[in-house]
Amino acid sequence: MKTRAAVAFEAKKPLEIVELDLEGPKAGEVLVEIMATGICHTDAYTLDGFDSEGIFPSVLGHEGAGIVREVGAGVASVKPGDHVIPLYTPECRQCKSCLSGKTNLCTAIRATQGKGLMPDGTTRFSYKGQPIYHYMGCSTFSNFTVLPEIAVAKIREDAPFQTSCYIGCGVTTGVGAVVNTAKVQVGEKVVVFGLGGIGLNVIQGARMVGADVIVGVDINPDREAWGRQFGMTHFIDGKGKSRETVIAEVLALTDGGADYSFDATGNTEVMRTALECCHRGWGESIIIGVAEAGREIATRPFQLVTGRVWKGTAFGGAKGRTDVPKIVDWYMNGKIAIDPMITHVLALEEINKGFDLMHAGESIRSVVVY
Amino acid sequence: MKTRAAVAFEAKKPLEIVELDLEGPKAGEVLVEIMATGICHTDAYTLDGFDSEGIFPSVLGHEGAGIVREVGAGVASVKPGDHVIPLYTPECRQCKSCLSGKTNLCTAIRATQGKGLMPDGTTRFSYKGQPIYHYMGCSTFSNFTVLPEIAVAKIREDAPFQTSCYIGCGVTTGVGAVVNTAKVQVGEKVVVFGLGGIGLNVIQGARMVGADVIVGVDINPDREAWGRQFGMTHFIDGKGKSRETVIAEVLALTDGGADYSFDATGNTEVMRTALECCHRGWGESIIIGVAEAGREIATRPFQLVTGRVWKGTAFGGAKGRTDVPKIVDWYMNGKIAIDPMITHVLALEEINKGFDLMHAGESIRSVVVY
Repeated sequence: MKTRAAVAFEAKKPLEIVELDLEGPKAGEVLVEIMATGICHTDAYTLDGFDSEGIFPSVLGHEGAGIVREVGAGVASVKPGDHVIPLYTPECRQCKSCLSGKTNLCTAIRATQGKGLMPDGTTRFSYKGQPIYHYMGCSTFSNFTVLPEIAVAKIREDAPFQTSCYIGCGVTTGVGAVVNTAKVQVGEKVVVFGLGGIGLNVIQGARMVGADVIVGVDINPDREAWGRQFGMTHFIDGKGKSRETVIAEVLALTDGGADYSFDATGNTEVMRTALECCHRGWGESIIIGVAEAGREIATRPFQLVTGRVWKGTAFGGAKGRTDVPKIVDWYMNGKIAIDPMITHVLALEEINKGFDLMHAGESIRSVVVY
Repeated sequence: MKTRAAVAFEAKKPLEIVELDLEGPKAGEVLVEIMATGICHTDAYTLDGFDSEGIFPSVLGHEGAGIVREVGAGVASVKPGDHVIPLYTPECRQCKSCLSGKTNLCTAIRATQGKGLMPDGTTRFSYKGQPIYHYMGCSTFSNFTVLPEIAVAKIREDAPFQTSCYIGCGVTTGVGAVVNTAKVQVGEKVVVFGLGGIGLNVIQGARMVGADVIVGVDINPDREAWGRQFGMTHFIDGKGKSRETVIAEVLALTDGGADYSFDATGNTEVMRTALECCHRGWGESIIIGVAEAGREIATRPFQLVTGRVWKGTAFGGAKGRTDVPKIVDWYMNGKIAIDPMITHVLALEEINKGFDLMHAGESIRSVVVY
C-alpha cells in the first residue's frame, strides 16, 4: 500500500513529505493508521545528528495514536478497529526483563529496533524501491505504519487522538517517573528541573499523588506560569545561579532537601544539582533527560554514602501495554490534564514548523493531525 | 578518673600510649570500659591526615566492645554491667532522620560529634590539663570512654569482646550493606570489589541471605582464598585489567550483569566499574568505601536511564541500637563468622603495629585487647 509520510532522508535536513510504499503486517505484526503524532525532543535529537546511532533515511516519530487496520498471523491481543498507542518500549511479557518484574525495559526486539528494522530484520517502508528505516519501532510520522503486536497498547475508544497521542511519550515519561520510578507518596517534597513537555508532566504526576511541595526550576521565567498551572507550588529561576545557590534555595523550600528530584533537562550539570539538592539519608534523584553523547555525570561519592540515591527512568518506568491504558484513564477521568499542553496543532505538511517551534521554546507540544 | 589510652597527638605520627584524665558521665551519658577494639581503615585515614576534618589531639578508635561501668542522670536503657558496643552512628529514635524510617543516619548529635565533642559541647578527655578530643563519638582506643546513651547498643553477655567488637564497624558495614541497603534476596547475583575487612563481610552477608552467585574482585590474588572461605563463588583478579575487561568478566559470570554490586575499595574508578557491571534494568551498585577527599565518581547518564541505580551506605544502613544486637545474635548462632577474620590480637602497647599490618595488607583485622 501507499502512505503519506514525513521522511528524514538525512541528518540536519528538514523532513520531506512524500508517498512511501508500505508492506502489510507479517506474523505478529499490526498495521496502524496513525491519527495524530506529537513532535518530541528525541525526534529532533536524532534529526539534528546528535544521536550517533541515528539511521537515515528513516521515518521518525514515536508519540502517536491511531487505529488498527489490519493484523498479521497469530495476532490475538488487538483486532482491526481497536484504538492503540504505539510503544517504543514494547512489553512482550516473556523476556528476562519483563519476567523480572523489576523493569519496563523489554528486550524482546531491542536488537532489530535499534537498527531501524522490524523483528524479522527487514523494513516495511520503501521509497522508489529503496528501503526507508523505522525509528524507535514506531515511525509515527507516517500516516500508516507497521508495528509488532507487543509494541501497541490498546486504549479506550473515547480518548481523542490529538491529545492521547502525547501519552505515547511525554505524558507517560513524566507522570510515570513519579508514579513508577520514584513512587512518590502523599505529603512528600519534590523538585523538578526543566519545565518543558516532560517536566510539566512530572509536576502534574506529583500533584496527582499528593506531594506537599512541588518546586520547579527553569532558566526561562515564562515557564513559571506553566508550572503553576499543573500544580507547581514554588518556582526557582535558575538563570545565572551557581549550583550552590540553587541547592540552598531548594533546601530552604523543602525543609532540608527534596525527597525526590527529577532532571528533565538533559544537562549533566543540572543532573548533579538535582542529586545534591536531595535530602540527606533518603532523597532520590531521577534522571529523565537524555544527555548529549559523551557527556558524563559526576559527584562526590559522599553524596551517595550519606544516603542519596541516583537513578534514571526510560518511558517513565511504564510497562506499555499494562500502564498506558491506565494513564489514558487518568486523563479521561481528569486526574491529569493534557489539552493545555498541546499548544500547536499542525497538518503533516507543516511538520517542520513543529520542530522550529520546539527549538524556539515557543511550544510545549506540537501535534500533527493526519 | 584515669584511663590508659593511645592518643593521636598529631596527624602522621604514631599513637602514644599515655594516661589521660577522664571526666565521668554527665546526664544522658554512660561510662564504658572498653574490653577490645578493632583497628579500622577509617582510623588510619584520619591518622594519616587524609580526613580534612580530622581533629587532633584525639583518641581514635570506633570499633569496640565493652561493659557499662557508670551511667549519668536520666539514663534508662542501659545499666552498669551491661555489655555494649559503641555506635559511631547513634540511634536517638526521635530526630527527623530516625523518625523517617528511611535512614540510619541519626542527626541528634551530628554537629558536636563532628567536632570531637560530647553533645554538651565539651570533651571528657584531657591530658596535663589540655583537652583531648573524642573521635566519631566513640574513642575506643581508650580503656575507658564516655558515650551518649543513644550511642551504645546493648548486646548479649555471652558474646566474646575480642570478636564482637568487630560488629561495631566492619561486620555491620559489610553485612548490613547486603541486608539493609541492598536487601539482597535469595537466588540473586552479587559482585564485591575489594576483599578486605569490609568486602569479606559483604560476601558472608550475601551467603547468609542465599545469593546464588557471589563474585569477588581484587587485585591481590591472595585474597581469593579469603573470599572463598566466606562464601565467594567466583574470583576475578582485577590486576592490570581495563574496566571493560572486568565488566565483561562479571557479565559472563552473572548472566548479563550483577543484581547488586558493592564497592569496598574507596577507589572512585572501581566505583564506576561496580556500577557499570550491574544488570541493565535493575542492577544496583552500593558504595561502601570512603574515597579520598576531592575525588569524584562519574559515569554516562545512560547507565542510570537504562535502569541501574547508584547508592551508598554508611554503617551498613544499620540502626545501631536496634540492629547491632541482631547481628551479634547472627554471629553467636553461626550464621556469620568473625573469628577467622581477627588475624591479629595485640596489647594496647602494640597498637601501632596494627596500623603497620593493615598498611602492609597482612591483616584482615587486628584487635587490641585491654
